[in-house]
Amino acid sequence: MVQTAIVATAPPAPSTAAGDATVGTRADRPGAAARVGSSAIRDLLELTERPEIISFAGGLPDPATFPADAIAAATARVLETDPGAALQYSTTEGHPGLRAWIADRRGAATGAVLITHGSQQALDLVARTLLEPGDAVVLADPAYVGALQVLRLAQADLIGVPSDEDGLRVDLLARRLAAGLRPRLVYVVATFDNPSGSTLSAARRAALADLADRYGFWIVDDDPYGELHWPGPDGAAAPAGPSLRQLSDRVITLGSFSKILSPGLRLGYLVAPEALTRELAINKQATDLHTSTLSQRVVHEIVAEPGFLDAHLDRIRAVYATRSAALADALVAELGEHLRFARPRGGMFVWARVEGGGPVDTQARLSVALAHGVAYVPGAAFAVDRAATAPLPTLRLSFAGAPVEAFAEGARRLRAALVP
Amino acid sequence: MVQTAIVATAPPAPSTAAGDATVGTRADRPGAAARVGSSAIRDLLELTERPEIISFAGGLPDPATFPADAIAAATARVLETDPGAALQYSTTEGHPGLRAWIADRRGAATGAVLITHGSQQALDLVARTLLEPGDAVVLADPAYVGALQVLRLAQADLIGVPSDEDGLRVDLLARRLAAGLRPRLVYVVATFDNPSGSTLSAARRAALADLADRYGFWIVDDDPYGELHWPGPDGAAAPAGPSLRQLSDRVITLGSFSKILSPGLRLGYLVAPEALTRELAINKQATDLHTSTLSQRVVHEIVAEPGFLDAHLDRIRAVYATRSAALADALVAELGEHLRFARPRGGMFVWARVEGGGPVDTQARLSVALAHGVAYVPGAAFAVDRAATAPLPTLRLSFAGAPVEAFAEGARRLRAALVP
Repeated sequence: MVQTAIVATAPPAPSTAAGDATVGTRADRPGAAARVGSSAIRDLLELTERPEIISFAGGLPDPATFPADAIAAATARVLETDPGAALQYSTTEGHPGLRAWIADRRGAATGAVLITHGSQQALDLVARTLLEPGDAVVLADPAYVGALQVLRLAQADLIGVPSDEDGLRVDLLARRLAAGLRPRLVYVVATFDNPSGSTLSAARRAALADLADRYGFWIVDDDPYGELHWPGPDGAAAPAGPSLRQLSDRVITLGSFSKILSPGLRLGYLVAPEALTRELAINKQATDLHTSTLSQRVVHEIVAEPGFLDAHLDRIRAVYATRSAALADALVAELGEHLRFARPRGGMFVWARVEGGGPVDTQARLSVALAHGVAYVPGAAFAVDRAATAPLPTLRLSFAGAPVEAFAEGARRLRAALVP
Repeated sequence: MVQTAIVATAPPAPSTAAGDATVGTRADRPGAAARVGSSAIRDLLELTERPEIISFAGGLPDPATFPADAIAAATARVLETDPGAALQYSTTEGHPGLRAWIADRRGAATGAVLITHGSQQALDLVARTLLEPGDAVVLADPAYVGALQVLRLAQADLIGVPSDEDGLRVDLLARRLAAGLRPRLVYVVATFDNPSGSTLSAARRAALADLADRYGFWIVDDDPYGELHWPGPDGAAAPAGPSLRQLSDRVITLGSFSKILSPGLRLGYLVAPEALTRELAINKQATDLHTSTLSQRVVHEIVAEPGFLDAHLDRIRAVYATRSAALADALVAELGEHLRFARPRGGMFVWARVEGGGPVDTQARLSVALAHGVAYVPGAAFAVDRAATAPLPTLRLSFAGAPVEAFAEGARRLRAALVP
């Protein structure tokens, strides 16, 4: 039941399942699962499910943000008014009304939109459609583990390019390209990155789009967190660059209803140039025919209701703004200068670095932290090339799931575990 | 919008999308979609959506069989009692209660079950996990087009072995194996096959299981129709062999709630040896994290209600038995000896052969049929190797979707189109 623990503790599920070891290869031939890999961290993180652990490891949204009543009411309406169609097979591309709504929200044509079982499936379809084994793929390093997993499954050659507080170091990517690197695609979470929390600056967005056009690679802009933003302590709005889609025709945007409505619905989508979307839809059809008709109709019913979504987004932004501030305050109060991090302006994560004293290896320290009753995801879990990575002093702390009233105690336990 | 038409007219969606031509290859490099292929038939079948066409082409279940009220009530209960969990991320393997229910129904251990977004996804995971490009895969010929599609996507070497009224000609497979063929897996719909309607005989099941053990290949037994059975005109029960799973450890059974509850929920599963199920779950995690939590909980709520499912199955068996008899009667009355077919004892399809006069090419005749206002899927759409296949006199007629009161007129139009 290894899988169970991962998904339950650290969604988007595989975000703690970094690939440093392999499991599940059968005797007769190494299977594809061996390429995806498993992890020793995975086993440790199973322990974070124990009730006495204060877990900052997971990425589960706060269930208080789920509009359960609206979902129940929308389901009842859809099944009352159009049960035959809502429960029937439907089109591979997705429910026309929901596609049109997404297209409008993303400033795209309806034909550019493909609705998927979560944005993870969207990325999987992109990988299966665009990549051949051995193709080079660049990721901002550290990277979302779900992306590492699916790109490894596609047998891509993963290349990490460092990121900083303004996101991917596009200057370093440009240097690699000038030196001959020819990636098939570049994967970024341009807005409120998982795990680093950074947002790609406007200047870097423009530079990255230029490079895509010049060198002919695809940009995948995975955007599950873009709607979860709030003003900083000074009241200034969170930084937001232009959408990468506006800057180049070689951009595939991934979106999701997981963080704004409910992850359990497994509803995501991609927006790509229409010819590519058609090709992705053919592979989607071979993969699972189409996305759940009922889920799509229910979500369309909800988002089409005038005013509902904006009001709902305001509510959940307030929830996460409060959570974010509470965790940041607790960390400052308890760990002070021993932990360096930027106060989040969106997303779900604090990305922190242990400082002072000797170098701290957060992966090695995880078992100590668990013994103190607190959990986090060590930075090593997000390294693109873990084998070549020295011990890291970084860690990802989620403020989305744990009880807010436990944040101060959690920070005290972190101090006990991490500060020499 | 080619996709749309296919899915809307002929589900399981790709069952009319045989791969005789390719679409959607982008200029910069031929994509994986080119391997899946499209079809000229596809374009013709778009026409079957016109209201004046009586379509026997689709495979859409009769919406009258969807338990919409039960689904609405179960959704309301689940969202009332446990909204936080029902809308949250969940485990990759699936909802524990639903896995246990499936395991019980299939006579397997819970650990053997993986819940998927439809059985199409189950087959896709099997293909991605077990197959390398170029691996030989045997299919009973004619074959389900959704299987052809996903196996082509996996770049398998597809080998058709003929089937007859007792299913796959296992004797011919044995001969090929003796001559050196070494398939990685053998795909069958052992019970009420799509398209042929045949059920693999008990003797052939035993022989096939023996061959799997001897030659070390996997059997995929795709079983969406097994619950849809009814007595013959003589009152005798439909034939049923032992489950292939009971005969060999090298069997992966695919199941689905699409034909017994609702295809729009996209809920299916596989049952495999536990070590393989674990490996499949790792790849499922990379693919889409997990299957919709809410859908799984709702279906579990429904199937766990004592007596409901058995009564529901009795109702829908009666619906399809009536439809099956009505179509068979209409065909006999209108086409008589010009059409040879077995009266279905289960499933959704009549598989027929045009006889008398010169050879009839049902693919070439499809446009004539459409001009007469009737549609079917020509046998050529299901050929494993279409390029090597001579014109075929076979056709698949679904009795599941078209209005019963139109069956007689539909049969008259078929006669006009097919009988010389």
